[in-house]
Amino acid sequence: MIKSICFLIFLGVNLTAFAQSSDEGTIKQLFDEALSKGKSYEMLYDLSVNIGPRLSGSPGAAASVEWSRHMMEDFGFDSVWLQPVMVPHWVRGMKEIGRINSKKMGTVEVNVCSLGGSVGTGPSGIAASVVEVKSFDELKSLGTKGVQGKIVFFNRPMDPTKINTFSAYGGAVEQRASGASEAAKYGAVAVLVRSMGSNLEDYPHTGSMRYAPNIVKIPALAISTRQAELLSKLLKDEKDVQFYMENHSVTLEDAPSFNVVGEIRGREFPKEIIVVGGHLDSWDLGQGAHDDGAGCVQSIEVLRLFNAIGYKPKRTIRAVMFMNEENGLRGGIKYAELAEKNKENHIAAIESDRGGFVPRGFTVPSEEKAKAKVRSWKPLLEPYGLSDFSQEGGGADIGPLANQGVALIGFLPDSQRYFNYHHTAEDTIDKVDKRELELGAASMAALVYLIDKYGLK
Amino acid sequence: MIKSICFLIFLGVNLTAFAQSSDEGTIKQLFDEALSKGKSYEMLYDLSVNIGPRLSGSPGAAASVEWSRHMMEDFGFDSVWLQPVMVPHWVRGMKEIGRINSKKMGTVEVNVCSLGGSVGTGPSGIAASVVEVKSFDELKSLGTKGVQGKIVFFNRPMDPTKINTFSAYGGAVEQRASGASEAAKYGAVAVLVRSMGSNLEDYPHTGSMRYAPNIVKIPALAISTRQAELLSKLLKDEKDVQFYMENHSVTLEDAPSFNVVGEIRGREFPKEIIVVGGHLDSWDLGQGAHDDGAGCVQSIEVLRLFNAIGYKPKRTIRAVMFMNEENGLRGGIKYAELAEKNKENHIAAIESDRGGFVPRGFTVPSEEKAKAKVRSWKPLLEPYGLSDFSQEGGGADIGPLANQGVALIGFLPDSQRYFNYHHTAEDTIDKVDKRELELGAASMAALVYLIDKYGLK
Repeated sequence: MIKSICFLIFLGVNLTAFAQSSDEGTIKQLFDEALSKGKSYEMLYDLSVNIGPRLSGSPGAAASVEWSRHMMEDFGFDSVWLQPVMVPHWVRGMKEIGRINSKKMGTVEVNVCSLGGSVGTGPSGIAASVVEVKSFDELKSLGTKGVQGKIVFFNRPMDPTKINTFSAYGGAVEQRASGASEAAKYGAVAVLVRSMGSNLEDYPHTGSMRYAPNIVKIPALAISTRQAELLSKLLKDEKDVQFYMENHSVTLEDAPSFNVVGEIRGREFPKEIIVVGGHLDSWDLGQGAHDDGAGCVQSIEVLRLFNAIGYKPKRTIRAVMFMNEENGLRGGIKYAELAEKNKENHIAAIESDRGGFVPRGFTVPSEEKAKAKVRSWKPLLEPYGLSDFSQEGGGADIGPLANQGVALIGFLPDSQRYFNYHHTAEDTIDKVDKRELELGAASMAALVYLIDKYGLK
Repeated sequence: MIKSICFLIFLGVNLTAFAQSSDEGTIKQLFDEALSKGKSYEMLYDLSVNIGPRLSGSPGAAASVEWSRHMMEDFGFDSVWLQPVMVPHWVRGMKEIGRINSKKMGTVEVNVCSLGGSVGTGPSGIAASVVEVKSFDELKSLGTKGVQGKIVFFNRPMDPTKINTFSAYGGAVEQRASGASEAAKYGAVAVLVRSMGSNLEDYPHTGSMRYAPNIVKIPALAISTRQAELLSKLLKDEKDVQFYMENHSVTLEDAPSFNVVGEIRGREFPKEIIVVGGHLDSWDLGQGAHDDGAGCVQSIEVLRLFNAIGYKPKRTIRAVMFMNEENGLRGGIKYAELAEKNKENHIAAIESDRGGFVPRGFTVPSEEKAKAKVRSWKPLLEPYGLSDFSQEGGGADIGPLANQGVALIGFLPDSQRYFNYHHTAEDTIDKVDKRELELGAASMAALVYLIDKYGLK
């Protein structure tokens, strides 16, 4: 008895060691291929520079759909197809105007941009006194008396002491998302929102905002962080500071667009699907290089890496380019709808939508068993800089899959530089480091490989 | 008895918990100060843009000595002083010329630069056939017959599959450091070395080289990685490719310079010294922003952070700006000499010389007890992204302190982007991210705080 236990233990240890070393080998192959013959940077260059911005409904978005379809077909994936989806169609219009009119400094032109979804001021613009607030509570305490007829200036910065910049973003973004309707309740004529940026900069950050139902829609513009500081200083010194703003944004009829899907069919369990994805649409100001060109090309690269090293997955691996994450999430919702309708069995979905920066880890599924399984792979992933498996959650586009019981995972690159570029004209290819992008693609491939091989149950 | 044991355990746990939470609090204070009111980026801007390149013996180096003295005096450190040291004085001279003369492509101007320490070609330059090798073994097998009268082109790239780019650098840099003398043994007239860069780029990387004794000194130039690829391709196609190079470098008499030292005296054990440092000198092509302006300003910032949060160290904390790391290490050697001569008791030295990138961890002392102690602090440091304590070693400047039994530690930022800029005209302030730099300074301060409080024994 003792002998046979010893034998079993011996066998067990050896099998584990063997599995481990074979996994180590495959993961190294994936990284080697990505770092020495990777295609992610070349793809991102093409998507960022030759196509450029890709806001839902724009010609760039349409071009990017065709581009990713061709790309995946050229790489020889087993199937590539489009999923039609109607998307919101908001257009910025002519470049916005923002002017501080101060007693001390005279007229100062400042850098502003419409928030996505904002109505326009009309050609005659809006001129009004500015009132600064740091929170919705402060706004409420000013009330109609303090706000009526004015431009409300939301100026709560992202907290620089938060180590994870996404936490700092989360602590400030309500001003952008719902500031306009909050201010309109008290009779404001427009809002000016301090840009969601980590540093003092001269360029504004756009991003989506929403109007609450049954409240008058007023224009909502972002102002650069440095000029938000200036405006705040002038308000302290002078009390009454006038501001002129002009934007020409308009929301058109919904437009037809597509998610783009490519897959390699599984050789053992083709009906079990692992999704890896990013979103194809981007804001209109930059090139959408980090947000989220990076996630798209990394997802395509995952499948290409498998083909390149000759790995035939047991399960079906899908790269999904979601449409319309930025201002509607229609692509993510449509994908989940179709998955349910077609009774597809998704076992996991991994999203890359935090930029093409150096890998730090992954967010883990909330279900205990799957969470433990992902964390158990840390020793295999840590040599590649992947050591953070502390947070739960996935990503916006894969979120709608949650109620089908899909394990949701987010690729976690380093967050420090993300909000330097996020939703700005600065989100361009030169801000992406080739090796960092490639390491991200290989990290995702390594995790998909492990999920494919061992499952998550 | 049981009761008293329980009581002791209870007490012990509580004391540990208290110490832990007080350490957590102080470390958070250091990070909060660095990220919200930090001075490191402002200092680095000044050092990089207003002073610029600082090669040993240059006017920039002299200016940087005065700059750092004033900076530390202005921050109110207890003492600030200079340590005189004679340094090598090599000057590049006029911009170098490099031309491929190929049958197919005619004359192609390429981007080359002298390696630090190289002799010049003289005004009439050197024109010769090129022979490519990937290793010293290959060179040896060619022998005098294959090399005599030719330019040897060392073209072994940094291995892109190494995750730590310093390993890739270590695997290629002998070509730069001693390629000239190796080639001269077989009668080469000059060497051309593929730049030590992680990617294909158009600009060359300089860096130090040394001539072996009693071997004729031949010029040594670096060529950009992209043009190294071109030259290699032409050599495959054409066999005989001619190259013309011209450089005007010269080594002058040793010049007087200084290390700059600032300290806060310890209130309990003033004779126990903890050093934190970087090197003030930089190569002449860029601004020395990452290499090693970052390490200098981070070191000054460590002391400033202690003052700013009102922490009075038990031990003496010194910021040392070493001179001449790049081409001689005279400052590091002098500092250790003086420490020994003055019978100073250094308990630890931490160097930051791997760029101002996002923190990953620290290299640990080789002595077992000190190593274990540093690793035991991982739980306190991991929330700030510091999770890699796997490697041993310190840094070049603090190396000479090793035989005085000083615990040597290196700050370990992420390595992926370092060799994009290292020793090039691209090492400029715009390549440094403010938050990443600040996080590094705070990381070093946190570790110094723990060493100061608990020692390393």
